Amino acid sequence: MTPSRRRVMLAELLADRDLDALLVSDLINVRYLSGFTGSNAALLVYADGRPAVLATDGRYRTQAARQAPELEIVIERACGRALAARAADAGAHRLGFESHVLTVDAHDALACALSDTPALLTRSAGLVEGLREVKDDGEIALLAAACAAADAALTALIDDGALRPGRTERQVRNDLEALLLAHGADGPSFETIVAAGANSAIPHHRPTDAVLAAGDFVKIDFGAVVGGYHSDMTRTLVLGRPADWQREIYHLVADAQRAGLRALAVGAALAEVDAAARGVITEAGYGEMFGHGLGHGVGLQIHEAPGINASAAGTLLAGSAVTVEPGVYLPGRGGVRIEDTLVVVGGQRDAPELLTRFPKELRSL
Amino acid sequence: MTPSRRRVMLAELLADRDLDALLVSDLINVRYLSGFTGSNAALLVYADGRPAVLATDGRYRTQAARQAPELEIVIERACGRALAARAADAGAHRLGFESHVLTVDAHDALACALSDTPALLTRSAGLVEGLREVKDDGEIALLAAACAAADAALTALIDDGALRPGRTERQVRNDLEALLLAHGADGPSFETIVAAGANSAIPHHRPTDAVLAAGDFVKIDFGAVVGGYHSDMTRTLVLGRPADWQREIYHLVADAQRAGLRALAVGAALAEVDAAARGVITEAGYGEMFGHGLGHGVGLQIHEAPGINASAAGTLLAGSAVTVEPGVYLPGRGGVRIEDTLVVVGGQRDAPELLTRFPKELRSL
Repeated sequence: MTPSRRRVMLAELLADRDLDALLVSDLINVRYLSGFTGSNAALLVYADGRPAVLATDGRYRTQAARQAPELEIVIERACGRALAARAADAGAHRLGFESHVLTVDAHDALACALSDTPALLTRSAGLVEGLREVKDDGEIALLAAACAAADAALTALIDDGALRPGRTERQVRNDLEALLLAHGADGPSFETIVAAGANSAIPHHRPTDAVLAAGDFVKIDFGAVVGGYHSDMTRTLVLGRPADWQREIYHLVADAQRAGLRALAVGAALAEVDAAARGVITEAGYGEMFGHGLGHGVGLQIHEAPGINASAAGTLLAGSAVTVEPGVYLPGRGGVRIEDTLVVVGGQRDAPELLTRFPKELRSL
Repeated sequence: MTPSRRRVMLAELLADRDLDALLVSDLINVRYLSGFTGSNAALLVYADGRPAVLATDGRYRTQAARQAPELEIVIERACGRALAARAADAGAHRLGFESHVLTVDAHDALACALSDTPALLTRSAGLVEGLREVKDDGEIALLAAACAAADAALTALIDDGALRPGRTERQVRNDLEALLLAHGADGPSFETIVAAGANSAIPHHRPTDAVLAAGDFVKIDFGAVVGGYHSDMTRTLVLGRPADWQREIYHLVADAQRAGLRALAVGAALAEVDAAARGVITEAGYGEMFGHGLGHGVGLQIHEAPGINASAAGTLLAGSAVTVEPGVYLPGRGGVRIEDTLVVVGGQRDAPELLTRFPKELRSL
C-alpha cells in the first residue's frame, strides 16, 4: 500500500470524527504516511482530500524531496507550529493533534501559534497507530525479511561455534549483531539480550562479561530491522546436557507457547490469548515466575499495538503482526523464554503465519 | 558523582523553585538520578531531602534492586501515576513534572490521579537536563572510552583495507559497526552514516548499496556507546588522489573546524562559537552549503544540551561535552564534514580536551 493510500484511509477516519485535519507529530507515523524518515518532521493531513504537507528542516531538504516526491514540503525547524499555522490559514477549524505523542510544552507552543485564529486543537490519540496495526503485503514482506535475517544470523552463530563455554555474553552479542548486518539487516531491532546461567532468569538482561559455562541456559532475545520493520525472536539453548529442572521448565514454556499460538485467531480477545498461554504455566505452579505480558505488536516499532496481556482490551485483527513470548524465570538459577513473530491471517480457523522459523526443540550445544 | 549526590543537587533546584517534589518521567533523567536503566520507570525526588522513590514494573524487579539498591522501589506499570499519588499522600503540594517530556495524555492521567488531592502539577522543564549539561569525572571517563572505541574502530577499518573502490556503503557500515563492538562499545551511538561520492553531499545519508569508486569522498559519521555515554565523530576521506575542488572544500572545512575549536571556552556565547566557524565558510562563499548547526552536547544522549547554533541562547559551561562539526555540501558532487567530541575545561584560556583523536589531515586511501 502506498503512503498516499494510507493518507486516504486516515482522511476517512478524520471525517468520521468531524476533524478538518490532523497534525501528525510522531516520526514513525510521519514515515508511515509519507515515506520520509528524517529525525525532525511533521505532516498535515486534511480530511477533505486536499494534498498533505510535510514539514522538516534544512538538513533534510534533498532527502524529503526524494522520499516524498508527491508532497509539498515546508522547510522550517519548528515543524509542528509551521503546519498548525498553515492549517489555520487553510481554514481548518477542528485540528486534531496526537495527544499521546505531543508534550505539554509542545502543545503550549501550538496553542500559542494558533491563538489569533479560530482553529481548535482537538485530542486525537492513536488514529495512525490504529491503521498501522493491520499490516499490508509490503509490510509483511519486510517483516518476513527481517525475521529471515534473524533466523540466518542465529543459525550462523551456532554453526560458527560462537556459543560455547568460555565465551562471554558480550562476545556472543557482538558476533550475533555482526551476523545480523552480514545477513542483510540494517541493524538490530533493539538491544540484543544474551543471558547465560543465572542471568537467564532476568527477563531483560543486558550482556555482560559473564562467561558462559557448561550446563548454562543461554537465552538470546534479538531481532533485525529491514526497511524499517522489526523482527523479534527469543530462543533458549543449553550448553551441554540439560538438567531435569531445565527440561521441565523448557517443555512447560514450549507448551505454553504452543497454546498461545493456537489462540492467535482473528477476533480472539487479546486477554484470552494471554490467558491461553498463561494458564498452562499457572497450572504447573509457575504462574508467579511469568511476570510479563504474552506478546506485543511489531512493525515500524519493536513494540506497537496490539499489546497481548491480561489487561488488554480489544481483539486480534487480520493482518496484525505480533509476538508470542511466554517465559518462566527462576531467580538465581535460570530462565527460559521462547518467542516468535507471527502474522494473524484470514478467517477464524486459519493458523497464523510464522515468520521466525528457527527451530524450537530443546537444543544442547 | 553518585546518583545520590545528583539528587541532592536537584533537591536544591527544587527548593529554589518552591517545588515540594519533582516527578521525573524521562528515562534518561531517571537513569542519571538513580542508575536504573529499565524501559519503564519514573522517579520521585523531594525538595526536602526525604528519600527518593523509584517506580518500575514487574519485569525489572531484580534489575531495579541491583542498580538502585539504596532506593525504595514501587512495582507498578503506571509508574507516573503511582508516584504522583505517593507524592500527594506524602503532603507534596507543588509537584513539578517534566512538561517537555510528558505527553498531553499522560498529563491528563496524572491530573486525574491527583484530582481528589490538593497537589498541584507544575510545569518544570529541563531541570535535570541542566544538571546533565556539566559532566563529572566519571562521565568524562565514559565519554573518553566511547571516543577511544570509535577511534580504534575507524583505525582498524582502514588498516583492514575495508575502505576501497568496489565495496558498498552498507558493507563498510557493517564492518565499522562490528569493529565498534569488538573494540569495547556496547553499540553504535546512532545510525552510522557512510556516504560515498555524491551521497556525501547529503548531511544525514543512510548507507545504501551504492558502490565506492575511485575519486570519491567517503564521509563517515559514527560513534560508540560505552556505559550509556555517546561519542560522535565524522571523518571524510578520499579514495585515491583528491581533485582540486575536494582539496579546497576539505581545507575550508578544516579551517572552520579549527576556528570553532578555538572558540570553545568557558563563558563563550553559544551563538558566537557557531559564528566563529560559520564565518570562515561564509567568507569563502560557501555559507549556503553549510545548512546545519555547528554542534551539540553529547552524554547519555547523542543530542543533548547545549545546542551550538546561530539561534542558541546561553554560554558554554565548564564540563560541557560538545561536538564541533562544520560541513560544506555541494549537491550532486560531494561534501565534507569534520567533527570532534570535546570537553570544555577550566578557565577561559584553557583549550578544550579533545576526546576523538583520529587524525584530521586530508587522507587519500
